[in-house]
Amino acid sequence: MRDFLPEDVRRREYVIGIIKRVYERYGFEPLETPAAENLETLLGKYGDEEKLIFKILRRGEHEATGQADLALRYDLTVPLARVVAQYQAKLPRPFKRYQIQPVWRADRPGRGRFREFYQCDVDSLGSTSPVVEAELCGAVADAMTELGFSDFVIRLNHRQLLTAMLDSRGVKPNEHMATLVTLDKLDKVGREGVEKELEARGRSRDAIEALMELFAPPQPSAATISKAMEGLRNAYAPSPASVVRDALKGLLDAVPHGQSAIANLKEIVTLAEQTKAKGRITFDRSLARGLSYYTGAIMELNVDGIGSLGGGGRYDNLIGMFSGQQIPACGFSLGLERILVVMTERGMFPPSLATSPADVMVATFDAAGAGPAMRIADQLRQSGLRVMVYPDPDRIGKQIKYADGRGIPFVAILGEDEIRAGRVTIKNLADRTQQTYEQSEAGAAIREALQQRG
Amino acid sequence: MRDFLPEDVRRREYVIGIIKRVYERYGFEPLETPAAENLETLLGKYGDEEKLIFKILRRGEHEATGQADLALRYDLTVPLARVVAQYQAKLPRPFKRYQIQPVWRADRPGRGRFREFYQCDVDSLGSTSPVVEAELCGAVADAMTELGFSDFVIRLNHRQLLTAMLDSRGVKPNEHMATLVTLDKLDKVGREGVEKELEARGRSRDAIEALMELFAPPQPSAATISKAMEGLRNAYAPSPASVVRDALKGLLDAVPHGQSAIANLKEIVTLAEQTKAKGRITFDRSLARGLSYYTGAIMELNVDGIGSLGGGGRYDNLIGMFSGQQIPACGFSLGLERILVVMTERGMFPPSLATSPADVMVATFDAAGAGPAMRIADQLRQSGLRVMVYPDPDRIGKQIKYADGRGIPFVAILGEDEIRAGRVTIKNLADRTQQTYEQSEAGAAIREALQQRG
Repeated sequence: MRDFLPEDVRRREYVIGIIKRVYERYGFEPLETPAAENLETLLGKYGDEEKLIFKILRRGEHEATGQADLALRYDLTVPLARVVAQYQAKLPRPFKRYQIQPVWRADRPGRGRFREFYQCDVDSLGSTSPVVEAELCGAVADAMTELGFSDFVIRLNHRQLLTAMLDSRGVKPNEHMATLVTLDKLDKVGREGVEKELEARGRSRDAIEALMELFAPPQPSAATISKAMEGLRNAYAPSPASVVRDALKGLLDAVPHGQSAIANLKEIVTLAEQTKAKGRITFDRSLARGLSYYTGAIMELNVDGIGSLGGGGRYDNLIGMFSGQQIPACGFSLGLERILVVMTERGMFPPSLATSPADVMVATFDAAGAGPAMRIADQLRQSGLRVMVYPDPDRIGKQIKYADGRGIPFVAILGEDEIRAGRVTIKNLADRTQQTYEQSEAGAAIREALQQRG
Repeated sequence: MRDFLPEDVRRREYVIGIIKRVYERYGFEPLETPAAENLETLLGKYGDEEKLIFKILRRGEHEATGQADLALRYDLTVPLARVVAQYQAKLPRPFKRYQIQPVWRADRPGRGRFREFYQCDVDSLGSTSPVVEAELCGAVADAMTELGFSDFVIRLNHRQLLTAMLDSRGVKPNEHMATLVTLDKLDKVGREGVEKELEARGRSRDAIEALMELFAPPQPSAATISKAMEGLRNAYAPSPASVVRDALKGLLDAVPHGQSAIANLKEIVTLAEQTKAKGRITFDRSLARGLSYYTGAIMELNVDGIGSLGGGGRYDNLIGMFSGQQIPACGFSLGLERILVVMTERGMFPPSLATSPADVMVATFDAAGAGPAMRIADQLRQSGLRVMVYPDPDRIGKQIKYADGRGIPFVAILGEDEIRAGRVTIKNLADRTQQTYEQSEAGAAIREALQQRG
């Protein structure tokens, strides 16, 4: 787990601010849940990952038992499902919420992977309409575009289609999940790696070939691609919905039982064409997504050369696990930490993002000068400036060096003469010039100089 | 621990936004630390309250031991001290930071008291100057004023003065802390309650009287108060610094060893006069503040009829507990939860605080209309509006009822005729009027109508 020093916090808040603003444009409302949930709320929801949950020891006389009753939030979806079940009477339907909070996983830390990390979730509850999936894709694409990304796609697949595909190749239902986890690695370990893993699981050569033919068909020829992508630079450039629909049509012959899933995907892709996700959607038959609670469309956000920055899908049965009443639901989660890593590497933060703690530092000469220093600071703040008072009467050279080192552009100097005359000297650290003003006029002068600097 | 539904989150963010903005005007920078600290970092810092720390079970093979190695953040001061010790080379000195994050205490919940609650801390590190205390009081008073409070005072006292007072009345050093905890209750249980508790602790009648004479002297006569407070309505109205200085002068004769502490308090009060805390500071000789790490001035924010909304003080030895090197420090913590309770009770939130999820809801007639609905929604968002698409083709009456119930002021209706003509009907739910526009002009029309509503 990490500390965030001021520069880190400013970058995080910049990104979070954009994501919130975009999600609010779509009518999503903010929700926050506590860091700790009852342990039993989390158990049985995350499959194999359950062992990564941080558990909280019982308190008081029960502490000695070494038992846990609470646990740290593992994702934002299960707490949402608990909230929707718990406040059913109070919440509107449909209910659309976003939630940006940390989650905790006792995972081995790695590059862009931490034990405390923020998720930015957006979910729609109460409707099975494909409008929901299309709008989620639109909102996510809108947020990514506002953040400055232009090379992303949203990969789309469908749990029921995956089921039909596995069924059609003779994989038994109780082997579906494990087989999908393996197939999901096509991106990472390639065709050969996946074949090897399936073999290790005891699949026959024939079965493996049947699966691979379905899940990782030979890529279309370069000519076909270049025709489809006419005028577009790479795989991460916009691709028209018609390409996706053609791919889905091709699959229908091979997996007739996937018909309704394919129809659903087609509707989603067609509707998403009317949103900011236009041209960003691709169909990927090998996309599986790990979590076991998905029931319909699944989605993953990928950036060229980076991999996944988020994902989501439809989970129509999860809320029913808490309330008995099924409420359909669909959501998308953005990984803030990876977005920050990529934006930092690519230099995507605006230069205007504050890096200094103040616009002006007021220097202090001696104990007697501290009062007037605080008074002028208050006056400068009233002009809308961020003002720091240097608290100790150190050598003026040391004070100016401090301001310079912190990137504070102006220093206000208040010697005995200035105090007597009701004036103040403003030193511009960029060009080392200085000028004396009436105290009441200094604020406006500094603001003007700041604007000129841009 | 609580869930925060949308309205709660909006109010919290409104208050946090104001506090951040004010603190940044003073040159404080944002810092965030992880929810979990190593357990040993927290142990030995909170005295008796240590038993209220939430501990996290070790993971993996060690889980069965029932031991804890991590713990949830108990306050924001100890993590700050750990950070300052850990990043000494990287952090500037002086370093001023604010931190607004939840903390967790396994306390019995009560009115405005929760097991997960936010603190808003502001601290200055690296200086022993009274400028630091005065500026903290100024920043806190500024934040309170911006939030809309006008009836608050900051009570001031000094740990070293308390020590001198107890010494002067023969209380042994090892009894100081317990005696202070009792005396701190004067506010809550009154003079009699405190005397009873001191008696139960085995103090003689004489010793108790000596203590009470010093800590709770007879109140000044009404005439004296009304003279001091001339023209001011009640005890929570501004009181001039001169009144505080007089009170301190009076105490010096009784506790000569408190001389340097009294001089320090006088400096703080005089400097604070130059800040937004002007007239807000009172001296309270019985103010003790529970936490054991304070070493100098201590402060508490009180609102008329409400009690404490925050407090703080100087803690010059805490960082040395982590780094070996002493770094002087002083801070103030605002209790967000109590501030929210009071502001809600008093109706202090602006009516402009959004209560509806959207400015416009786009109704959906049938599956064929969903695409055009999403397109007009996108267009309206580009005019800066918050737009929700109703996802299901429910009866139009049901859809309008939903918008009305959610406080969404406008509904965009897109029937077959409108789609064909490239137009859209906008229904104003306030006056039940409706008007048809070119789709490209609807956004501007709605914005104008919203502005007229104010």
